Amino acid sequence: MLNFEFHNPTKVLFGKGQIAKIKNEIPEGSKVLMVYGGGSIKKNGVYDQVTKALEDFEVVEFQGVPPNPEYAILMEAVKIVKDQNIDYLLAVGGGSVIDGVKFISSAAKFDGEDAWDILAKGIRTYEGVPFGTVLTLPATGSEMNSGSVITRAETKEKRTMGGPGLFPQFSVLDPEVVHSIPKRQIANGLVDSFSHVIEQYLTYPVAAKLQDRIAESVMQTLIEVAPKIMKDPSDYDAASDFMWSCTMALNGLLRMGTPNDWATHMMAHELTALYGIDHARTLAIIHPSHLRHNFEDKKEKLAQYGERVWGIRGGTIEEIAEQAIQKTEEYFHSLEIDTKLSAYTEDYEGTAEIIAKRFKERGWEGLGERKNVTPDDAAKIVSMSY
Amino acid sequence: MLNFEFHNPTKVLFGKGQIAKIKNEIPEGSKVLMVYGGGSIKKNGVYDQVTKALEDFEVVEFQGVPPNPEYAILMEAVKIVKDQNIDYLLAVGGGSVIDGVKFISSAAKFDGEDAWDILAKGIRTYEGVPFGTVLTLPATGSEMNSGSVITRAETKEKRTMGGPGLFPQFSVLDPEVVHSIPKRQIANGLVDSFSHVIEQYLTYPVAAKLQDRIAESVMQTLIEVAPKIMKDPSDYDAASDFMWSCTMALNGLLRMGTPNDWATHMMAHELTALYGIDHARTLAIIHPSHLRHNFEDKKEKLAQYGERVWGIRGGTIEEIAEQAIQKTEEYFHSLEIDTKLSAYTEDYEGTAEIIAKRFKERGWEGLGERKNVTPDDAAKIVSMSY
Repeated sequence: MLNFEFHNPTKVLFGKGQIAKIKNEIPEGSKVLMVYGGGSIKKNGVYDQVTKALEDFEVVEFQGVPPNPEYAILMEAVKIVKDQNIDYLLAVGGGSVIDGVKFISSAAKFDGEDAWDILAKGIRTYEGVPFGTVLTLPATGSEMNSGSVITRAETKEKRTMGGPGLFPQFSVLDPEVVHSIPKRQIANGLVDSFSHVIEQYLTYPVAAKLQDRIAESVMQTLIEVAPKIMKDPSDYDAASDFMWSCTMALNGLLRMGTPNDWATHMMAHELTALYGIDHARTLAIIHPSHLRHNFEDKKEKLAQYGERVWGIRGGTIEEIAEQAIQKTEEYFHSLEIDTKLSAYTEDYEGTAEIIAKRFKERGWEGLGERKNVTPDDAAKIVSMSY
Repeated sequence: MLNFEFHNPTKVLFGKGQIAKIKNEIPEGSKVLMVYGGGSIKKNGVYDQVTKALEDFEVVEFQGVPPNPEYAILMEAVKIVKDQNIDYLLAVGGGSVIDGVKFISSAAKFDGEDAWDILAKGIRTYEGVPFGTVLTLPATGSEMNSGSVITRAETKEKRTMGGPGLFPQFSVLDPEVVHSIPKRQIANGLVDSFSHVIEQYLTYPVAAKLQDRIAESVMQTLIEVAPKIMKDPSDYDAASDFMWSCTMALNGLLRMGTPNDWATHMMAHELTALYGIDHARTLAIIHPSHLRHNFEDKKEKLAQYGERVWGIRGGTIEEIAEQAIQKTEEYFHSLEIDTKLSAYTEDYEGTAEIIAKRFKERGWEGLGERKNVTPDDAAKIVSMSY
C-alpha cells in the first residue's frame, strides 16, 4: 500500500427531513449567500424547505449557476460576497452548483490579482469562506470532497481546483429529491459516479485489498440499483443506495494508498468545454478507448474487475479484461448513453489534435497512473472515440 | 436506508515514516502528555520515533496504562493533566491506551463530582482535551472513532463512553509496527475487527446495499490476509491491509443507515471484567451462541454473509446461515482462539446468572438490533457459550 493521508471533515446529514437541520449547522448570526442553479429547486420543494430552515438568518440569494459552472457568472457572486460581507455560503443543487460555490469560497478570499489563476496555475485553497451544501443531484461526489471543476466560456476551457479548505462543512443528502430528477440526469449520475471509481481503481495492482473491494462494492451497487432507479426515481430505497454510492465514489476513501488515473477526466473535460456535451457522457465516450489504448498497463486490474464486478468466468487475463471493457460499454448503453463522440457532434474531426495541442501548451507531458499518457496518446485515444 | 449523520474529523497518516509528521499536527507550544502502556514501544523503535518527533514540545510521560484500561490508573493521569496544565494528549499504543486517553481527555474537562459518572451514567463528551494517537496494535478501531471502553477493577466493571468530542485529531498508522506484535495479539486484532463488522452487519436486511458490501469487503480482506500476517508479521503489504481493515471496521462508515447489534460486546465485556480474558477472545466465545440464539431474527443476513463472504452455495436460507456460523467459528479456531468459556476458566458456572443480574441492575431490558435480547436471553446465550 502506498503511504497516504486521509482527512475528510464534512458532516453528512442523510435521509428524509434532514434539510431542516441546516439551521443548527450554520453559525448563528451568519449572513448567508444561498447559491442555486436554474430554479428546479422551486418546483421540487427543496427551495421552500431550505428557506424555511434559514428563516433565522439574513439570506441573499444567487440564482443561475449553469451546468458546467461558468467563471464569469461565479465572479458576480464573488463580488456579492465581498460587497455584502457574506460570511457563509450554502450551495443548493448538484455538482455544478457545489463546484461553483467552492470557487466562490476560494476566490472571495484570494489575494492575487486574477482569480482565474486559482485554476490556471493550480493554486490550492487552504482557507475559503465556509460553506455547506444541500445536494439535489447525486453524481459528482462534490458534496463530500474538496475538488471543483470550473468552466470559462470565453476561452472554452474547463479546469480543476481544490485544497483542504474546500470541504463542505456539512452536506444534506435527502434521497427524496431524486424523484424529481429527469432520467437523463439520473443516467448521468450513474455514469459519472461509476467513472469516478474506474479512475481510482482501474490502474495497476498494489497491495490495497480493502480499497479494491470497496471500489468494487460501489460499482456493484450502482449496477444493481441502476435499473431500479431508472424505472422508478421515487423508489426511496433505490434512491438512497444511488445517492450514497455517488458520494462514496469520490469522498477520498477509494483512492487512499493506491495509484490514480484521471486521464479520462482530463480528456473528457475538453469535450465538454469544446462541444457542451454533458460531463458524464464525455466520460462514457473516452473510457473505453482509454482502457483499450492502455490495455497492457491495465489488464490485471481489468481482469479483476471483470471477474469480481461482472462475474466473468474463464479465459485468459486478456480475454476477461477485454470482456470487462465491453461490459462497461454495455452498462453505459443500458442507460441510453452513447459512447462515441460522433453521436453528439458532427464536428468531431480535429478534436484529437486540439486536445493534444492544449495538453502540450499546459505542459501536461504524462497523464494517468504511470504518467505515461502523452498528449499524442491523448490524441490517439480521442480519435479512437470518434 | 435509515436516516444517519456521519462526521469523522480524524486525520489519518498512514504508512512508513509517518510518525515524524506528528510534530506538524500538534499546535506549536503545546505541553503534551504522552501516554503509553507497558513499555513495548521502547523495544520496537516507536518510543524513539515519537520522542524525536516531539523534541520541540514540552513533554510529560505517563507510562503504565494496562490492557483493559483501568479507571484508577487513568485518574492519576487526569490529575497530571489538571495539575501540570497539559493542553495536548498523545496516545502511543493499542486500543487500550487510546481508549484510556479518551477517558483522560473527557475526565480532565468533566465538571461533575465523580468522573466515573461519565461511564456509569453514559454522559456524552462534547469537548475534551485535544489528542492524537500513534497506533501500535491494529484491532479496536479506536484510532478513528469516538468510543472508549474503561475497566474498573474495584467493582469488576467494564463500561463504555463516547461523544463527538472524543475523535482523535490525528492518528498515525504505520504498518511497520506490526512486525513486533506477538502473534497472540495479532490473532486478537483479526478477531476483534471481524467482530466489529459482525455487530454492524449481522442484523436484519435494510436497504443499505453499499454498506453491506463494504462490511463484506472488510471481512473478506481480513479472512484473506489472516494467514499471511499470522505467518509473517513483517509482510508489509499484509500488515497494511490488516491495519487499514481494522480501522475501517469501526470508523462509523459501516453502520451508517443500518440497524446495529452490539449485544455480543456487552456480554463479552462482562467476561473480561469477571475473568480478565482478552477482549477479542470473549467476543469469539459469545458470537456463535448469540447468532444461534437469535437465529430466526438474523438468518437472512447470515445467509447473505454465508454466500458472499464464505462462498457457500446451495441449500436453504437456514442451511446457509448455519454453515456461515460454523465458518465463523472455524475462522476463530484457525487463529488458535477458543470459542468456549470453559477453555479459559474453570469457574464458569454461574456466569450467566451474574451477567443477567448486572444487566437487570443497569436497566438493560432489551439489547441487540431489535432491542429484544433480554437479560434472561443474555443468560441463555452465555450458558450456551460455556
